[in-house]
Amino acid sequence: MRLRPSWVSGLNSEFFVETKKRVEVIDITAEVEKRAGSGNACLVFVPHATAALILNEFEPNIQEDYGEFFSRIAKGEWKHDRIDNNAEAHLLSALISPSVLVPVENKRLQLGTWQRIMLVELDGPRKRKVLVRMI
Amino acid sequence: MRLRPSWVSGLNSEFFVETKKRVEVIDITAEVEKRAGSGNACLVFVPHATAALILNEFEPNIQEDYGEFFSRIAKGEWKHDRIDNNAEAHLLSALISPSVLVPVENKRLQLGTWQRIMLVELDGPRKRKVLVRMI
Amino acid sequence: MRLRPSWVSGLNSEFFVETKKRVEVIDITAEVEKRAGSGNACLVFVPHATAALILNEFEPNIQEDYGEFFSRIAKGEWKHDRIDNNAEAHLLSALISPSVLVPVENKRLQLGTWQRIMLVELDGPRKRKVLVRMI
Repeated sequence: MRLRPSWVSGLNSEFFVETKKRVEVIDITAEVEKRAGSGNACLVFVPHATAALILNEFEPNIQEDYGEFFSRIAKGEWKHDRIDNNAEAHLLSALISPSVLVPVENKRLQLGTWQRIMLVELDGPRKRKVLVRMI
Repeated sequence: MRLRPSWVSGLNSEFFVETKKRVEVIDITAEVEKRAGSGNACLVFVPHATAALILNEFEPNIQEDYGEFFSRIAKGEWKHDRIDNNAEAHLLSALISPSVLVPVENKRLQLGTWQRIMLVELDGPRKRKVLVRMI
Repeated sequence: MRLRPSWVSGLNSEFFVETKKRVEVIDITAEVEKRAGSGNACLVFVPHATAALILNEFEPNIQEDYGEFFSRIAKGEWKHDRIDNNAEAHLLSALISPSVLVPVENKRLQLGTWQRIMLVELDGPRKRKVLVRMI
């Protein structure tokens, strides 16, 4: 997994994440934090339909658990697989959500001790865009 | 399914969606887009406890898959059914969420190529209100 | 369950909720409403990785149903339990989300008739912090 900053323009910013596996959970907190500016909250958003964002603990054990947990929820035979073999990825990302919204104070994310912002890749490997928007 | 614009007042706006089935997924992207104004993000919100909003791909196959996927997650015998026979709809809408938040630039929603905003009816047919709020 | 107001500073505010059970759903709507101020939306956020927030109906039957429903989704053998016996709580709170975002008009939350804001304790009993932020 590599992170490449793209552009920063005033309050708006985006960066890219290259994933390596079909299902993968990647900690992107540091990339979001450096883009946090003035405002009351920071919106992090993936403009994708087979990836999602979550906010929770990140360590190697639970990192693997997330993948198994999410995969289990949507396992099945789906009609969408007739046209594109990634129905599970769509159903899961629809359920999980493509955004997280974090309170901000003095340009700093008000995250709890164990909260990390993570990108959930559900149909990788792919290059994913992450938008960071102060509001 | 019919969409009827209601009122537009400055940054605030709402419209109604009439659903036809018990469980149904309806693409409301066009109705939201025409209400997007100045601001950094667009909040779409349903003031209901048995409907929800998702952001993902919309095509006839996956439209049916959503319904089956969501119904499967909450299938069961629930205490709330003693007083109102719609516990599954409440549990699902609580899990899915009544809102989506989309980044906006130059009054345009920054949606990905495959992202559509959808209302998820879980206890229809009903007339549902959708609030659109720029923030 | 007791609620203790903490501090209110301009648009920013927080309060604490003391939970009594391992899994528990608590209506915090009144505490959020009194902190709603000027703005277009109200962000409610828990800075925790084993608690979450939902927006839905609250009554004694469904209150119990939520607990059973959420517990059922994440039941399993997880790697994270080797280091901390609360993997289910992490997986569920990651899926449910630590925030709700409610439209506001004239300093009043635009909640639907049956919508209540609830804290979902998944690894209690604990003292939980809730942030309320106008945006």
